[in-house]
Amino acid sequence: MPARYLSFRCSVPWLILLLQALFLTRSFFGFPGVSDSYGLSNSYPEFQDVTHMVIFGFGFFLMVLRRYGFSSTGFNFLLVVLGVQCSMLAEDLLCRTAACSLWSLAKAVVSTTAVVISTGAVLGKANPVQLIVMTLVELIFFHVSRCINSTFLKVPEHLTVMHVHLFGAYFGLALTSRFPEPPPGLDKNRSTPKSELFSVLGTVFVWVFWPSFNSILSESKEAVLNTYLALAVSAVAAFMLSALTSKDGKFRMAHIRSAALAGGVAVSYTAHRIQHPWIAMILGLLGSVITILGSHCLQRCFNPALKLQDTSGVHFTFGLPAVLGAVAAVVLCVVEDGIETQWNELSSLGYIAFYYIGAFCQTISTALITGLITGLILNIKLLKAVHVSKYFDDQFYWEFPHLSVGF
Amino acid sequence: MPARYLSFRCSVPWLILLLQALFLTRSFFGFPGVSDSYGLSNSYPEFQDVTHMVIFGFGFFLMVLRRYGFSSTGFNFLLVVLGVQCSMLAEDLLCRTAACSLWSLAKAVVSTTAVVISTGAVLGKANPVQLIVMTLVELIFFHVSRCINSTFLKVPEHLTVMHVHLFGAYFGLALTSRFPEPPPGLDKNRSTPKSELFSVLGTVFVWVFWPSFNSILSESKEAVLNTYLALAVSAVAAFMLSALTSKDGKFRMAHIRSAALAGGVAVSYTAHRIQHPWIAMILGLLGSVITILGSHCLQRCFNPALKLQDTSGVHFTFGLPAVLGAVAAVVLCVVEDGIETQWNELSSLGYIAFYYIGAFCQTISTALITGLITGLILNIKLLKAVHVSKYFDDQFYWEFPHLSVGF
Amino acid sequence: MPARYLSFRCSVPWLILLLQALFLTRSFFGFPGVSDSYGLSNSYPEFQDVTHMVIFGFGFFLMVLRRYGFSSTGFNFLLVVLGVQCSMLAEDLLCRTAACSLWSLAKAVVSTTAVVISTGAVLGKANPVQLIVMTLVELIFFHVSRCINSTFLKVPEHLTVMHVHLFGAYFGLALTSRFPEPPPGLDKNRSTPKSELFSVLGTVFVWVFWPSFNSILSESKEAVLNTYLALAVSAVAAFMLSALTSKDGKFRMAHIRSAALAGGVAVSYTAHRIQHPWIAMILGLLGSVITILGSHCLQRCFNPALKLQDTSGVHFTFGLPAVLGAVAAVVLCVVEDGIETQWNELSSLGYIAFYYIGAFCQTISTALITGLITGLILNIKLLKAVHVSKYFDDQFYWEFPHLSVGF
Repeated sequence: MPARYLSFRCSVPWLILLLQALFLTRSFFGFPGVSDSYGLSNSYPEFQDVTHMVIFGFGFFLMVLRRYGFSSTGFNFLLVVLGVQCSMLAEDLLCRTAACSLWSLAKAVVSTTAVVISTGAVLGKANPVQLIVMTLVELIFFHVSRCINSTFLKVPEHLTVMHVHLFGAYFGLALTSRFPEPPPGLDKNRSTPKSELFSVLGTVFVWVFWPSFNSILSESKEAVLNTYLALAVSAVAAFMLSALTSKDGKFRMAHIRSAALAGGVAVSYTAHRIQHPWIAMILGLLGSVITILGSHCLQRCFNPALKLQDTSGVHFTFGLPAVLGAVAAVVLCVVEDGIETQWNELSSLGYIAFYYIGAFCQTISTALITGLITGLILNIKLLKAVHVSKYFDDQFYWEFPHLSVGF
Repeated sequence: MPARYLSFRCSVPWLILLLQALFLTRSFFGFPGVSDSYGLSNSYPEFQDVTHMVIFGFGFFLMVLRRYGFSSTGFNFLLVVLGVQCSMLAEDLLCRTAACSLWSLAKAVVSTTAVVISTGAVLGKANPVQLIVMTLVELIFFHVSRCINSTFLKVPEHLTVMHVHLFGAYFGLALTSRFPEPPPGLDKNRSTPKSELFSVLGTVFVWVFWPSFNSILSESKEAVLNTYLALAVSAVAAFMLSALTSKDGKFRMAHIRSAALAGGVAVSYTAHRIQHPWIAMILGLLGSVITILGSHCLQRCFNPALKLQDTSGVHFTFGLPAVLGAVAAVVLCVVEDGIETQWNELSSLGYIAFYYIGAFCQTISTALITGLITGLILNIKLLKAVHVSKYFDDQFYWEFPHLSVGF
Repeated sequence: MPARYLSFRCSVPWLILLLQALFLTRSFFGFPGVSDSYGLSNSYPEFQDVTHMVIFGFGFFLMVLRRYGFSSTGFNFLLVVLGVQCSMLAEDLLCRTAACSLWSLAKAVVSTTAVVISTGAVLGKANPVQLIVMTLVELIFFHVSRCINSTFLKVPEHLTVMHVHLFGAYFGLALTSRFPEPPPGLDKNRSTPKSELFSVLGTVFVWVFWPSFNSILSESKEAVLNTYLALAVSAVAAFMLSALTSKDGKFRMAHIRSAALAGGVAVSYTAHRIQHPWIAMILGLLGSVITILGSHCLQRCFNPALKLQDTSGVHFTFGLPAVLGAVAAVVLCVVEDGIETQWNELSSLGYIAFYYIGAFCQTISTALITGLITGLILNIKLLKAVHVSKYFDDQFYWEFPHLSVGF
């Protein structure tokens, strides 16, 4: 057994080296000079916000497990820096629009969020080799799906990237269904007040920087305002629903963590075009409701039935609000265009709705199918999956400064 | 007894729901479209700084009590997101200047700081229902006080908002005087090195973002520079005075936490008009001195005499430096105008001084009176105040992932 | 013995007071009004990033020792706020270019990084008096060295400041060689998982804000992009090399902390002029390699031979990558000019190379010599050096809220 673990560990650096060599080679032959194109130069603060949110915010957001703090932040950091390079490469190969500018870097960072979300679903169950392979496969398929959306379904460039939440959540979900369940007695997948506190720290960062995330690619200030209002309402609703649904009317931090962010996901498709603040606010409220109800239904009925184990709840945190957001985008678009044309051109409305729904279905089905396949590949013997007794444990991956761990 | 707690808890979600429904209705009928007016669009980075400071910085700044970490950050988050909406509503109703833009949002976030500061005074003693009612009442009276200042006393718009520190501190102080004192043997209101460390983390955030806070509404770059210098000097003075006043010449983290921020409060009224850096530096130094001396005097003489218990010391952290700042504003303005007119128009100088002093007195007395009344209302039986034995305890409000708490 | 400690402590506040009085006097007589010159006003977000990185990022980055958390952040904060003022004063006296603007403030904050890095080398071994004297001496000599570089060696203004890493690391190294070694049995200089986690938090901040650090003075957007790519590659390489060099293929957080930042240091001299992303990426990779190999070689051979104790490893974290960066700058510059002139004007190339190498040698030798002298001065009896048994201990400097410390 130890030999097997050893061999897995030894393959990590070589895999990373191979990938990095590939990226370096590609950038040597491929990228144009950095100086020729600098779109987005005024958006540098937003770019910093998004980087901060993805690396720091999500890194600490995922730090819920009591013995998995190092891996949560560390692996998130590794996957993001690998993913950004991989994403630029995939974009460059597939879409041929790339010039190495701050704009393409921003798109790469936003795309990498899909990987971060998927990581949440298999948190503590996948080893670094599996995570790295997952990052590669997921980003390639995400960019393929984006290309289909923008080429065949005429979705605008910046909206195709906003499918990250949907793609990431359902890819992760399909993936985690192929991982063996942890034994019921294992208590390492619990959180402690300290790990929850670090997780709250990350959540607040994600919350604060979300308006930048939703506005960076559309470059519209309406997106900032609408996202802020949606987030505010969903945070308020998170507290309300947490007290309503838990025993004794106490608040539960896990609820607030998930539901406070739901508003940001729910308006991600529509933030740049909503004209009335109350629409964004209603979307934030609905996002929060769907998240909290979803967390109860899914964890009690859906997940046990399908033998799923979604460690940090990405299905209800990112998946369901993203579905809501996609539905809202269709409705808003049809209603707006309907009002504009006074409901005279119904065929054109049907056309628009068809495209929107098509893009949504294409993304979600690509995510589910490729996620399942990736899950099957990741659990073949060659990749030396972690034994369930070693799940959720930092000590398996990290050298500790001292023996006494206990986060 | 348990029945009483239960009933209090059950009223929280409905109260939140009611408020949120109110805000939604208002925004449905009231707000103009978001697209028509986007002042302040260049100040987006400053806006992010201020949001970050209020939600994250103050949330962790308040995390001093050893068993109250969840509530400190969690309730701060809830009150800010509620307060921002409430503040926009109050502004809209009272001043009729509102258009839903980034500028009005920024003003709302800055105003909400008053609530955050008041929360510090009753930290650990008020339950969520009391805190929510306090938020509503405080923000309404703060906006009334602002309207009086701007209408009758001709204080410029952005300066009326800068009274947040003064209003928040004295409102909180009057409020906390109506809460029963914790029993002397209770040791839950102590801090531990770990909780202090989280608090330092929050303090550093507040410190770094303060220049944005002082400059966002006046939109002047002088304010940034003056605030930075004042903060730097007050941080240096904080270390000096902490070593001077404590036993054995050791530093005390609580001193540094309060006094390092005093400079930012002290220059808040004048940061945009100070012409010479040394004035800002002197103000920072005086702010720090007044805070540390105040913390010794108030905690030994004033608070016990009045049976006050100001949990996180908002009186000397925000109240006293704000008084200093207000006095400095009068002096600076009179001296500047005096030099300009070569001291010929003494009556006009008196006029200016009268307006400044009037605004100051009006704000502080409104804060004290409404704070007292709110304190009386909050402690009626209907709102089910927390029993003193349950003070400063997360477990009363939060469902814990695990039994062993001990922050 | 206690009397001696007491007397040291009592001298801290007076030393700070003296310095602050000096700065105030100077700013009273010296600075022009703040309103006359506001270059860099568009770079306010970058300025905030750099302040945040230096105060918060480095403060928590240094929090590796298990009983030294308060001092790591607290003293870092004190030294930065003192250092910024001292740096503005030194700049003003030496270079006569000063106007009190955001630009001069930014330059002062960047220069203060030298002090922060040196502090890392003597972390836990120097008392506040020693640290404050060190700050003063180091900043004065850094500015003297900068003046020599810009006056005699024609190095552009913004590049002279980029020597901070080199100067800080070698000054700190020479300094720490004059401090007595801690006894071998002392276990207070170890880290715990919790202190490592706080340190990771700081590292991520430094990582995210590094592009702003490298671009703020050159005001070029190329610098942002190149620094980002270099950092990404060096973070990836850090994981790879950490797994390769440690036992069993586990990751070691200390490696990742140091090596992930190496890319930022390595491109600091050249970020604004690199035309092809792959050059920045290669530099990031080499920086990471040199850091990890350096950490093994230095800690096993070099440090014990010279009886050095470099607490937080500034030699390999900042020193070696800075040397690499300086070498790369010469090579890049010569190659670029060579290609431009088709290698016809070899004498002019030699000239350029001579200037670059001269500036590098001048900086490193000034750092080493002044560091040694400062180390000798700091350990005279007058300054009451800490006894080795009191090394790495917060309790010696801070009043604790509670007796049980144990971070």
